[in-house]
Amino acid sequence: MLEVLHRISREVNAAPGLRQALSIIVKRVADAMRVDVCSVYLADPETDRLVLMDTRGLNPDAVGRVRLRPSEGLVGMVAERGEPINLDNAYDHPRFRYFPETGEELFHSFLGVPIVHYRKLLGVLVVQQMAERRFDEDDVAFLVTLGAQLAGAIAHAEASGGLDSLHNGDPAGKGHMLQGLPAAPGVAMGTAVVHAAQADLESVPDREPDDIDAEKSRFMAAVRAVREELRRLSGELEGTLSSDEHMLFDVYLRMLDDDSLVGETMRAIESGNWAPGGLRQTIGQHVQVFEDMEDPYLRERASDIRDLGSRILARLREDSGKARPLPDRVILVGKEVSATQLAEVPQENLAGVVSATGTRNSHVAILARALSVPAVMGVSDLRAGRMDGKPVIVDGYSGRFYVQPSEAVREEYERLARDEAEFADSLESLKDQPAETPDGFGIKLLANTGLISDINLSLASGCDGIGLHRTEFPFIVRDRFPGEEEQAMLYRRVLEYFRPRPVVLRTLDIGGDKSLPYFPVQEENPFLGWRGIRLTLDHPEIFLTQLRAMVRANIGNGNLRVMFPMISRLHEVDEAKALLARAVEELREEGMEVEMPPIGVMVEVPAAVVMADKLAQRVAFLSVGTNDLTQYLLAVDRNNARVASLYDELHPAVLQAIAEVVEAGRKHDCPVSVCGGMAGDPAGAILLLALGVNSLSMSVASLLRIKWVVRSMSREKATELLTLALEMESPDDVRAMLKRALDEQGLGGLIRAGK
Amino acid sequence: MLEVLHRISREVNAAPGLRQALSIIVKRVADAMRVDVCSVYLADPETDRLVLMDTRGLNPDAVGRVRLRPSEGLVGMVAERGEPINLDNAYDHPRFRYFPETGEELFHSFLGVPIVHYRKLLGVLVVQQMAERRFDEDDVAFLVTLGAQLAGAIAHAEASGGLDSLHNGDPAGKGHMLQGLPAAPGVAMGTAVVHAAQADLESVPDREPDDIDAEKSRFMAAVRAVREELRRLSGELEGTLSSDEHMLFDVYLRMLDDDSLVGETMRAIESGNWAPGGLRQTIGQHVQVFEDMEDPYLRERASDIRDLGSRILARLREDSGKARPLPDRVILVGKEVSATQLAEVPQENLAGVVSATGTRNSHVAILARALSVPAVMGVSDLRAGRMDGKPVIVDGYSGRFYVQPSEAVREEYERLARDEAEFADSLESLKDQPAETPDGFGIKLLANTGLISDINLSLASGCDGIGLHRTEFPFIVRDRFPGEEEQAMLYRRVLEYFRPRPVVLRTLDIGGDKSLPYFPVQEENPFLGWRGIRLTLDHPEIFLTQLRAMVRANIGNGNLRVMFPMISRLHEVDEAKALLARAVEELREEGMEVEMPPIGVMVEVPAAVVMADKLAQRVAFLSVGTNDLTQYLLAVDRNNARVASLYDELHPAVLQAIAEVVEAGRKHDCPVSVCGGMAGDPAGAILLLALGVNSLSMSVASLLRIKWVVRSMSREKATELLTLALEMESPDDVRAMLKRALDEQGLGGLIRAGK
Repeated sequence: MLEVLHRISREVNAAPGLRQALSIIVKRVADAMRVDVCSVYLADPETDRLVLMDTRGLNPDAVGRVRLRPSEGLVGMVAERGEPINLDNAYDHPRFRYFPETGEELFHSFLGVPIVHYRKLLGVLVVQQMAERRFDEDDVAFLVTLGAQLAGAIAHAEASGGLDSLHNGDPAGKGHMLQGLPAAPGVAMGTAVVHAAQADLESVPDREPDDIDAEKSRFMAAVRAVREELRRLSGELEGTLSSDEHMLFDVYLRMLDDDSLVGETMRAIESGNWAPGGLRQTIGQHVQVFEDMEDPYLRERASDIRDLGSRILARLREDSGKARPLPDRVILVGKEVSATQLAEVPQENLAGVVSATGTRNSHVAILARALSVPAVMGVSDLRAGRMDGKPVIVDGYSGRFYVQPSEAVREEYERLARDEAEFADSLESLKDQPAETPDGFGIKLLANTGLISDINLSLASGCDGIGLHRTEFPFIVRDRFPGEEEQAMLYRRVLEYFRPRPVVLRTLDIGGDKSLPYFPVQEENPFLGWRGIRLTLDHPEIFLTQLRAMVRANIGNGNLRVMFPMISRLHEVDEAKALLARAVEELREEGMEVEMPPIGVMVEVPAAVVMADKLAQRVAFLSVGTNDLTQYLLAVDRNNARVASLYDELHPAVLQAIAEVVEAGRKHDCPVSVCGGMAGDPAGAILLLALGVNSLSMSVASLLRIKWVVRSMSREKATELLTLALEMESPDDVRAMLKRALDEQGLGGLIRAGK
Repeated sequence: MLEVLHRISREVNAAPGLRQALSIIVKRVADAMRVDVCSVYLADPETDRLVLMDTRGLNPDAVGRVRLRPSEGLVGMVAERGEPINLDNAYDHPRFRYFPETGEELFHSFLGVPIVHYRKLLGVLVVQQMAERRFDEDDVAFLVTLGAQLAGAIAHAEASGGLDSLHNGDPAGKGHMLQGLPAAPGVAMGTAVVHAAQADLESVPDREPDDIDAEKSRFMAAVRAVREELRRLSGELEGTLSSDEHMLFDVYLRMLDDDSLVGETMRAIESGNWAPGGLRQTIGQHVQVFEDMEDPYLRERASDIRDLGSRILARLREDSGKARPLPDRVILVGKEVSATQLAEVPQENLAGVVSATGTRNSHVAILARALSVPAVMGVSDLRAGRMDGKPVIVDGYSGRFYVQPSEAVREEYERLARDEAEFADSLESLKDQPAETPDGFGIKLLANTGLISDINLSLASGCDGIGLHRTEFPFIVRDRFPGEEEQAMLYRRVLEYFRPRPVVLRTLDIGGDKSLPYFPVQEENPFLGWRGIRLTLDHPEIFLTQLRAMVRANIGNGNLRVMFPMISRLHEVDEAKALLARAVEELREEGMEVEMPPIGVMVEVPAAVVMADKLAQRVAFLSVGTNDLTQYLLAVDRNNARVASLYDELHPAVLQAIAEVVEAGRKHDCPVSVCGGMAGDPAGAILLLALGVNSLSMSVASLLRIKWVVRSMSREKATELLTLALEMESPDDVRAMLKRALDEQGLGGLIRAGK
């Protein structure tokens, strides 16, 4: 049975559209359950009706014509209750309603199950049988399981435009809106550029070729190149492989000579697709043939075809990857946009980012905010392949993404963009003003940095120093651990720029989630694994090199502070401190005049909140990392779209935790900073101001906005709001209240442009 | 450079032993860095010396003869400081020491880096050059990176017996001890049975065949069967595949005809290995050839060879998988022992479990405790393949695993086993005594269950009810969601058995870490993902079926309590409660006389601790799940061997959190239970007693032990200990203190048999 489930699920997932997916479902279910009828109804939210979308067994003419209210009939009852309903004789049920167009009078027994996707009712799956018999537990369980497993695929197919066909004849050209997660503020209009990852065939978009013949010969050249490559490899290995192993090459070579792969791709190009698109189509079909096979060994063979496809694709890329000119305003769109892809677009062209995966805390979103480019992540219904080259709008405030927007939508957003620009100008004037509330309470505003570009921007926006400088980037971009000299040079640059303002360098914070190519770490739950101080304490030879580099960089600067991430036990602080002291001592022995810098720790593991009192006695400063802290307190991975909606830094548990840390700091005269996303969020900053945090450290793009909040909102008012927030039951309530308060203070523009 | 690193790392990992691994290292490093000399020294902890283990460039006769104290020479200095040392002229350094046997006088420049594995210095890697030149940053960084990457492989090779060769001529037959994590208490002696996962070729052990000829013909039969299978498949697909794709089959068939794979395996059998072992050897060598290739495409071809190997192995298994009789006392040993493998051994034969991966909280460890069988997990140095059929001892108290133990060790353990049996008898008498401290404080002791076997055992041990019944098992073992009727029957059984004592049924707690085969969930950080109440609230059609089944099962019993897992927001409780109320209402409408059961929630997400006050006003009971709570509070995945040592339920942060929950419960008259591992740990139970928890729920195996603790330790004394514990800085200190206290009270036997 499991095999049947997997098979159906695989086929449905591979279906090109909703229609095809539903047709596969009704056919396969009818076969697997040996029933006379299988029908699928989908909910149309616009008309609040359940529409018969496909059937096997009922009159096919009824499709699209049977439309039920949720209060109508047995199907409506399944929808209403969200539970399976199993009847041996449907006629006897008071809710039975007869639709003559279906020919339903023949069928007595009825089993309906809801199709639910993340709490949303998508539709109802029904099987019926002529004989009057009650479906057994197995049947019910099978259909429920199938419904649960298919819900995702149906939601996906539906969102990709399939549902349009419910509203008879909506013009396909009309724009549609997709909802994602707001990830970097701002609004941008531009042209979608779909970035397909290197050799990732599946994400290649369809695209109309300028010149079909050129495209064809380009494809043939790529095939030739691959063929030669294989021949060369084959020749080189003549001696080392057994003769049969060697034959593998011949097979692949033959595949390239044969008409099936090459010929079909040529035909796809002729019918109006560019070479990579045609290749994707052909390879996809061939792969499907193998993947549908019962035999697991043969199924694996699909990878051979895929390999061959990737190899040809790579050649096509070499040939003309950079040929296509970029539009002026690039909205980078992709299934999984990476930081590298973003970096490949020249900064002056990059206008926005939209990704099907990720959240506001993904690397690429962080980067987008650093570059002040709007971004929307987690657009799970995105079918990137279909939108390359189309006009789009990204709304980084609301998380909306418009494809081929209507005139009205475009005008509205143009107005917003103008307001936004004005607003930015008005912020500009705050640059040299102090961050002080109207009732005279001052707070330090610091920058979070990690790239040299951040540093220049931070200086320009007049911050009071760097509250968190991430040191991972130089480690990530190299193919080995950077040496002491290299690191010292980089750190020195940051310290010099900001002197005499303080700069907090955080020691290496890598692990399973950000692992280095030359030091791979594979873990089941990387966020609960070997990362931050845990890893560096286990590798003192690497840690010492970094600490020595930091201390050396401070010579002549004197503004260095060192911060340790992921502290969960006190002895970790003691050990890290001892290593730093050793680095200082060694450097002195080597004749350098170095000093022991002030030490701080990140409070991001809940245990560190509880130990804040003891930590405050051991270090010179505490810095609350609200991103990770929230994640652990709520047990939510903010990068997991399934649960990201549960992640909220305004959760009363988080506020309570920060209050404890602030209290501990105050008691021992140890300053407390907040360096997570909450510090750069206007709503969060108000509460932190009230909590009595000494400084806020945030991405550069937020600095002036937050300064505006601080200068507009009295501490008294903020304290009132905090008192209310701490008593609230849900983070949503807290957020709504703060939004109201910001609006009242005339600060609504901070959350949404166009005040 | 990255490619070179990966290449060396791959080769070293594939080396059959330490000698070979070191020889690869010195050769490859000398080549890659173009230096005259590369040498590797390993630390021998027994003699506290650094021994020259291999060299390229120095006099080979010096290997094994140059032995330095850590305070001696430059190599000693690298070891002592745990840092790279880079000198253009080694002679000038005061620490330079000359070893005439090496011929070292020729080499001026010196670069040494430490090899560190989880803080432990394994050795020193040195390169030297004749010319007087300083190695540059790149060289240092390369060698440091290589050292860090190879540390794991060296530690592994060393632990697999290689280090023996340091102590010239230790008899190889002598037993050795491996250290793992204690996972289920008890001691067992028996015979190692290595369970290789189905078709997992790599974990097939070497084994001496009883009859070489029989083994050979068995192998040939398997090859024939695979050949026929491929032919049949090939025939069936004649029409559907393109002719070239079809040729793939011929290649695989040819490989089976060829001498290389088949012939080499036959020779391996002849030289004294059984068929699966010989097959593993041969396939391994061929795979290696491919994996070493530069071209990524060709490297992938290794999977073809592996596929073929698995296919033959599967046939060999069919043929004689069950032929070998099991020893009387099976110690199940494996790289990754699964719950299924454990279930396959008849319970009367199963004496112990040893696994290279996992911790005391892995499923298999939980199962071992439920079955009262000692287990040791996370024996990272385990080379299971070499120990099949050998006599072994498992010590589930200390986490030790002895292979071919000496006479003395065996006698000692036999004595311990006798003491243990006596101790168990003395516990037996407590069965009908109340769980009350000498100073008259009573606490309820409940059982954690999940299998029917648990239930029988729980009844026999006289517990006060079930504090946590896990409902996942019926979901895991089926190939679809179990139906309402099926579930109701299972729940009714549990309720009936225990009536009138209360039974807490926890609603479905699945997710990425325990995902169902028919409802797969793939996540990056499953512990922070879509699990427990998050998933069931998103799928009401599945949740309602379970809730209805629970409520129906309670008809005529009246002892049901329902508990919701993974609560992190208050509205989750409200929603779950509403669904339960709906289930009750529906069943009443259907004419059943059902009642709304009392509701409780798990406090296992840190946010729930902060909200305990509000939760206590909403539900009838709270139950602290210390396993997950500790995990989140400390940000440690207890199943990750890299960080498992940081996981401790006695961490002051955990104690503090439980105290908060108890306080909230007291305030609102809402009973608080603890159902995590801490409740069944004597040290933990003392603190929970002092904290004022109302009941402790634990695995059946711990029930009587904990009753003994409660009946021996006054609440006053426990409270004293708690006060001290809350002030302590480290969980290790807390544990040590409690161990002393237990010893003083004559309860040492609870932690270690043989009081």
